[in-house]
Amino acid sequence: MKKKPRKKSKWMSGKKKGLPPGSLVYVGNRENQKLACQILDYNTSEFHEHSFNDPEKCLSFKDSESVTWINIIGLSDTEKISKIAKHYGLHDLLVEDILNTTSRPKIEQTEDYIFAILKMAWHEGDILHFEHITVVLGSNWVLTFQELSGDVFNTIRERIKIPSSKIRKSNADHLYYALLDCIVDNYFVVLEHVGDKLEDFEDELVDHAGHESFLKLQSYRKELIRLRRSVYPLREVISTLSKTEHQLISSSNDRYFRDLYDHTIQVIETVETFRDLMTTMFDIYMSGVSNRMNNIMKVLTIIATIFIPLTFIVGVYGMNFENMPELQWKYGYFLVLGFMATLAFGMLWMFKKKGWL
Amino acid sequence: MKKKPRKKSKWMSGKKKGLPPGSLVYVGNRENQKLACQILDYNTSEFHEHSFNDPEKCLSFKDSESVTWINIIGLSDTEKISKIAKHYGLHDLLVEDILNTTSRPKIEQTEDYIFAILKMAWHEGDILHFEHITVVLGSNWVLTFQELSGDVFNTIRERIKIPSSKIRKSNADHLYYALLDCIVDNYFVVLEHVGDKLEDFEDELVDHAGHESFLKLQSYRKELIRLRRSVYPLREVISTLSKTEHQLISSSNDRYFRDLYDHTIQVIETVETFRDLMTTMFDIYMSGVSNRMNNIMKVLTIIATIFIPLTFIVGVYGMNFENMPELQWKYGYFLVLGFMATLAFGMLWMFKKKGWL
Amino acid sequence: MKKKPRKKSKWMSGKKKGLPPGSLVYVGNRENQKLACQILDYNTSEFHEHSFNDPEKCLSFKDSESVTWINIIGLSDTEKISKIAKHYGLHDLLVEDILNTTSRPKIEQTEDYIFAILKMAWHEGDILHFEHITVVLGSNWVLTFQELSGDVFNTIRERIKIPSSKIRKSNADHLYYALLDCIVDNYFVVLEHVGDKLEDFEDELVDHAGHESFLKLQSYRKELIRLRRSVYPLREVISTLSKTEHQLISSSNDRYFRDLYDHTIQVIETVETFRDLMTTMFDIYMSGVSNRMNNIMKVLTIIATIFIPLTFIVGVYGMNFENMPELQWKYGYFLVLGFMATLAFGMLWMFKKKGWL
Amino acid sequence: MKKKPRKKSKWMSGKKKGLPPGSLVYVGNRENQKLACQILDYNTSEFHEHSFNDPEKCLSFKDSESVTWINIIGLSDTEKISKIAKHYGLHDLLVEDILNTTSRPKIEQTEDYIFAILKMAWHEGDILHFEHITVVLGSNWVLTFQELSGDVFNTIRERIKIPSSKIRKSNADHLYYALLDCIVDNYFVVLEHVGDKLEDFEDELVDHAGHESFLKLQSYRKELIRLRRSVYPLREVISTLSKTEHQLISSSNDRYFRDLYDHTIQVIETVETFRDLMTTMFDIYMSGVSNRMNNIMKVLTIIATIFIPLTFIVGVYGMNFENMPELQWKYGYFLVLGFMATLAFGMLWMFKKKGWL
Amino acid sequence: MKKKPRKKSKWMSGKKKGLPPGSLVYVGNRENQKLACQILDYNTSEFHEHSFNDPEKCLSFKDSESVTWINIIGLSDTEKISKIAKHYGLHDLLVEDILNTTSRPKIEQTEDYIFAILKMAWHEGDILHFEHITVVLGSNWVLTFQELSGDVFNTIRERIKIPSSKIRKSNADHLYYALLDCIVDNYFVVLEHVGDKLEDFEDELVDHAGHESFLKLQSYRKELIRLRRSVYPLREVISTLSKTEHQLISSSNDRYFRDLYDHTIQVIETVETFRDLMTTMFDIYMSGVSNRMNNIMKVLTIIATIFIPLTFIVGVYGMNFENMPELQWKYGYFLVLGFMATLAFGMLWMFKKKGWL
Repeated sequence: MKKKPRKKSKWMSGKKKGLPPGSLVYVGNRENQKLACQILDYNTSEFHEHSFNDPEKCLSFKDSESVTWINIIGLSDTEKISKIAKHYGLHDLLVEDILNTTSRPKIEQTEDYIFAILKMAWHEGDILHFEHITVVLGSNWVLTFQELSGDVFNTIRERIKIPSSKIRKSNADHLYYALLDCIVDNYFVVLEHVGDKLEDFEDELVDHAGHESFLKLQSYRKELIRLRRSVYPLREVISTLSKTEHQLISSSNDRYFRDLYDHTIQVIETVETFRDLMTTMFDIYMSGVSNRMNNIMKVLTIIATIFIPLTFIVGVYGMNFENMPELQWKYGYFLVLGFMATLAFGMLWMFKKKGWL
Repeated sequence: MKKKPRKKSKWMSGKKKGLPPGSLVYVGNRENQKLACQILDYNTSEFHEHSFNDPEKCLSFKDSESVTWINIIGLSDTEKISKIAKHYGLHDLLVEDILNTTSRPKIEQTEDYIFAILKMAWHEGDILHFEHITVVLGSNWVLTFQELSGDVFNTIRERIKIPSSKIRKSNADHLYYALLDCIVDNYFVVLEHVGDKLEDFEDELVDHAGHESFLKLQSYRKELIRLRRSVYPLREVISTLSKTEHQLISSSNDRYFRDLYDHTIQVIETVETFRDLMTTMFDIYMSGVSNRMNNIMKVLTIIATIFIPLTFIVGVYGMNFENMPELQWKYGYFLVLGFMATLAFGMLWMFKKKGWL
Repeated sequence: MKKKPRKKSKWMSGKKKGLPPGSLVYVGNRENQKLACQILDYNTSEFHEHSFNDPEKCLSFKDSESVTWINIIGLSDTEKISKIAKHYGLHDLLVEDILNTTSRPKIEQTEDYIFAILKMAWHEGDILHFEHITVVLGSNWVLTFQELSGDVFNTIRERIKIPSSKIRKSNADHLYYALLDCIVDNYFVVLEHVGDKLEDFEDELVDHAGHESFLKLQSYRKELIRLRRSVYPLREVISTLSKTEHQLISSSNDRYFRDLYDHTIQVIETVETFRDLMTTMFDIYMSGVSNRMNNIMKVLTIIATIFIPLTFIVGVYGMNFENMPELQWKYGYFLVLGFMATLAFGMLWMFKKKGWL
Repeated sequence: MKKKPRKKSKWMSGKKKGLPPGSLVYVGNRENQKLACQILDYNTSEFHEHSFNDPEKCLSFKDSESVTWINIIGLSDTEKISKIAKHYGLHDLLVEDILNTTSRPKIEQTEDYIFAILKMAWHEGDILHFEHITVVLGSNWVLTFQELSGDVFNTIRERIKIPSSKIRKSNADHLYYALLDCIVDNYFVVLEHVGDKLEDFEDELVDHAGHESFLKLQSYRKELIRLRRSVYPLREVISTLSKTEHQLISSSNDRYFRDLYDHTIQVIETVETFRDLMTTMFDIYMSGVSNRMNNIMKVLTIIATIFIPLTFIVGVYGMNFENMPELQWKYGYFLVLGFMATLAFGMLWMFKKKGWL
Repeated sequence: MKKKPRKKSKWMSGKKKGLPPGSLVYVGNRENQKLACQILDYNTSEFHEHSFNDPEKCLSFKDSESVTWINIIGLSDTEKISKIAKHYGLHDLLVEDILNTTSRPKIEQTEDYIFAILKMAWHEGDILHFEHITVVLGSNWVLTFQELSGDVFNTIRERIKIPSSKIRKSNADHLYYALLDCIVDNYFVVLEHVGDKLEDFEDELVDHAGHESFLKLQSYRKELIRLRRSVYPLREVISTLSKTEHQLISSSNDRYFRDLYDHTIQVIETVETFRDLMTTMFDIYMSGVSNRMNNIMKVLTIIATIFIPLTFIVGVYGMNFENMPELQWKYGYFLVLGFMATLAFGMLWMFKKKGWL
């Protein structure tokens, strides 16, 4: 029961079933996140930073002549989100996508804007998080919608503050590129983290492969499945961007978008390599388990194979027949003991020779 | 024997073998469903709802100027179906497809209509149902053929009744879109349900993996196979629609069909993710089974390995040799008991060290 | 040794190695089938049926104005086959294909004819048969070459006899379509049969999974492999036909060929689904086997784990030490019996708790 | 150590590392094969056969007006090979390929010649051999380079001797086709052989699946891997040929090359089918092994399960307590024997009921 | 902890996260490699070799009329690298790629240069190394950046010194080709080495398959995964080069680049074949393990099955009943011994017949 909300955000939501398309419903599990609005407005010579709780105040920046980055945090207040989005000219169906955190990465271009939905990935301790993010490029503004405060863009904020930075000297399209680059770069961090985890885990697997490590392995597998789900559509998005000839993107940025595409490919290839490693690890686990099992069976077999015949022999001389000549022999007992010792060592020697020990 | 009828509808039917193409034979297992006809006729200002048992009455709506949705329920009366279909200009081969509930999703366009066959999926308790549905778009009418009364379109019926709704203000092509959207959206509901079931089931698998859970797993697998069978051709259908430049679909609806296509892709990706999860679960099951088996073997080995040598020792002193000095020792019995206890604890300690306990 | 002839027809034949291309050699295993010739000659108003043993008599129908279907049965008399084929204008390499029953389905178009090689599938009891069939469409004749008498075309023969049938009113291209449709439709019958068999078999597998059921499973697998081999190239053939713009096929039949293509796809998808089911069944088999094995091991473990310690105890009191105080106790025997009963029930209770019973 | 030379020819050679491209080095393991030269010179009316040890003598045939097939055997004398090749206009890089028996099948076209490298496959007893062969088509000559004397072309040689044969009446392009056809046809022979071997082997597997049959299975697998390696690039080569519009190939031969392509596809499909069979066989092997193991375990379990409790009982009455009333009973011994017999048969009956016997 | 640096270079680095694109950071683990500069300057008649520690001195060669190969060794001094790169006209993003040893092989063409990043592979004993290398072709210079001194190009250096060599007579594009050819050729050496290792290892596996060989197998697998990672993008790079019509590459070198492409394909196919072999080996390992296990179980079963009933029998005559007639028989003991011997041999004979021995 208590897992329900988590599940909804993980797969997809049937919550909107039956509503007309373009209905504005927040699909996610951060209902309590308050709406906030961060604005960075700059050109080569000036730089202004604003922060509002009332998102209406950010509407006026649409027509400013300087480059403006409007960052909206919190998606639960659907009406306000919708108002902002519409002010910046976005279609109802796109607003729906902004609000639906289960919708997949996509790109949509019109004459007036380039609209991209992405998944931002980061690690918090050992837990991999994904955040739904929308990045829209307009004439001289960039609009981003996030579910949570806190993101991977702090370095961009720092760079904007430096007057001599390339970003300050460029148009909104370079800011757009920088944001996407930042998201993709963060996948590198995540993948490096995952790679380290996997390698540590492999050492663990080789040493002792229990059912617990198996369950851990399965959880890693599912993490990778989720990573793939968010990374694969990313390729489409970035590929479209790197090939597009949109008027909003100046040709001098082409090279940057192509570079971004190369990085995306590298991310995907690494995810694929991790999947191969997963299979390798699964085999290591299986082999470890069967190896341990075999060792256990070997011990059982050796013990049983040595003692079962011996027990038979002592059983023979435990029989109560009246006429059993050996029983009267003076050294019968010691002869039998000696014979059994010989037998036991003979078998041990045989096992050794067969390589069972 | 008693399963035969179910099977027929599941795979494909050889019932029609040898009949000329375009022969009108109902292939399905709802022979008793009476034919019924629901009509919703509307334009921006007016709205009429009709319900007939005699389907002939719906023929007249073809040329009405308002938008008409003619919903035919029940496919077993092939003659009447054929009469309606032909009145609306459908080719014999298409009527054959309407009646054959085992035929796969497809789309067919002529100048006068767009003809689509789909599978509607829904859950009834834990059982996944599929219903064969035909959706035809004409100049200002939409014709649907269903096997059963009861469908996923009630929300659309509600929206049509609201004069201010987008659907009321639009032409038949928007109704067409709305119906398809409704079918695709329902896959989300189904997938959410399946996702929940799979997650609950995974917990069950981790806790106790018996042969019963395995059979359950296999039934889920088959459910997914069936889902894929109905979802994959759906992509083709929707993709064709989203790319077509048919005169019956106004370009303002293009964006909606593209959105629909995105949803279809998301449905397919989720089905694929579920298949990956299936593999993961199968591995969990296998590991659980082998883990339990190993535990059982471990217990056997430990018990046997400890007691087999002990039994041998007591056997030795059960022998009836006349000359066995130890037997006369005063504390021989206790010495042996002590030795055996030492041996047993020694072995337990060794097992502990080897990590078998 | 005795399998040789069957093998040859199953894979491919090296019999023709070194002969010049276009050499006419019958590759098959029905050497004794006599050549026979069935002719159906019809137009809207007239219908004639002929049957010859001497195939030369069918040469004259090439230039008749009515539509003629010339059906040649038996391929072992290569010379006569060649004579007929050449009279109807077929190239040497095609005659070679007609005679080689191991050659794969293909289509070849020239200005004068459309030449298709297919595999006809049908069930005889539980055994799946494939027959090599050639279907050639000429200006107003259709030529078919079969290996055996008896085919799937009887319903077409019936339809031709009915003056009002579509086939009677159409040209040779519709007859051509009807023949291909008949062949594809028969795959539906075969697949329905296979589907039924597989479902029955699955029930069998769930109930008792022995090595015999496994071998049966493998034989089904091979049957599917053979089915795929004949069905996959079929797609190419029908696809080519449905896209071709050959003068011999009037555009009014386009829709029919497209419908045929849809059916072919459905056949292929069903074969693929069966392959998925096969995997599922293999897993069911494996799980069933390992489940049974586990149950056997559990019984062994429980019996052994309970009795091995008990046997040790009775062994202790079977020792012949002179000084064993317990032996003189009046109720020693009963105390030991009681202790052993307690121990046994204690272990049973523990097993129950661990879920092993 | 002694395997080194075989390995080199199997994978690829690093022997040429660091040499300039186009360096003429023989890579293979038939260093001792003497160079020989066979020449067949013919036109419709005449036929001449020559055989030289000195390859220089074959240079003069380049400009003869009749069709000439120059067959060079032995590749170890790189200088002479190079001389001939250059005389016939081949580029240095191609000569390198002629000499490198590890290079993969390829085709290269220039205005003056069509150059193809292929692998010829044949069986010698049960061992599959591959031979590197180069086939070059020039204006009116065909040049072939083989590693060894002895090939699959004898039937072509016979056909050339017959004045009325198609080959005699045609140009060099038909000879070229005939040679390639011969090579592809030989794959049929090889595959038939492999198919027979696999079927015999499957029977063997079903009957007794030991580790030896497994190793045999693996060797077959590797044989198939090698077959694929030589067959797959063949498709590219033949496909290019069948689509090319080279001036050296008259359009009347198009049909022949297309036919050849069909055969190549059939070869590849059969190899793929064999791979599927391999998987099936592996499963048969695994199932056979586990089946045998299960039978062994069953016997152990039954024996142990019956005798362990009985041994316990006889142990009870082997105890030396002074007060054991049953021991004094007159028929105590027989009662116990009877009880144990009952117990044993009861357990056997239970096993029978559980289907373990 | 101590593995960290190795890991970084293996997957990808998050070190650069947040830096502006084009930031020059060395990502690798050869921080101590001093920068060095080797220059080979030549034309048909002259040849000069220079070696500097100060890379600035190599700037002047850009405009020399002779062909110049500038080889820069050591990437840790990012500033100097950047200075050289910029002097030769490379874009910032490309300099970033030169310095990032985890970036994947790629090719980038502008009007002025062709920029390629590759991985150079070589063996040092049994350890496979990869080195990041950048190869840039300019108007009459080739610029290479390596991480380490020591490379695979010595043979090229030798060839350049020979005045009559093709390389001396050609332009910079041929040198460029020669360098790439050298890198690809070295993969052949690596693959031959790997092939030898795998074959030796297979023999080892067949003889004794322990957990250690399994871990070795896994390490080979991972080596192959890494090989694929560096080889696959290589195909793209070489394919682009072989198809490009860049002004810097004269058409006379086209054939060389096509030949290079063929070699690359062969490298990739061999890697794929090795992967197939890996699977085969894994199966051999699994079969070997299960075979050994089965042998162990067989021995246990045979010993237990023979001795358990015998032990029961001796237990029977060890009972202390007063009335056990057999005990008084004169030859009772010998009869029992005889009976047990018969039983034991009978069972052995039965096992033999069942093929268990």
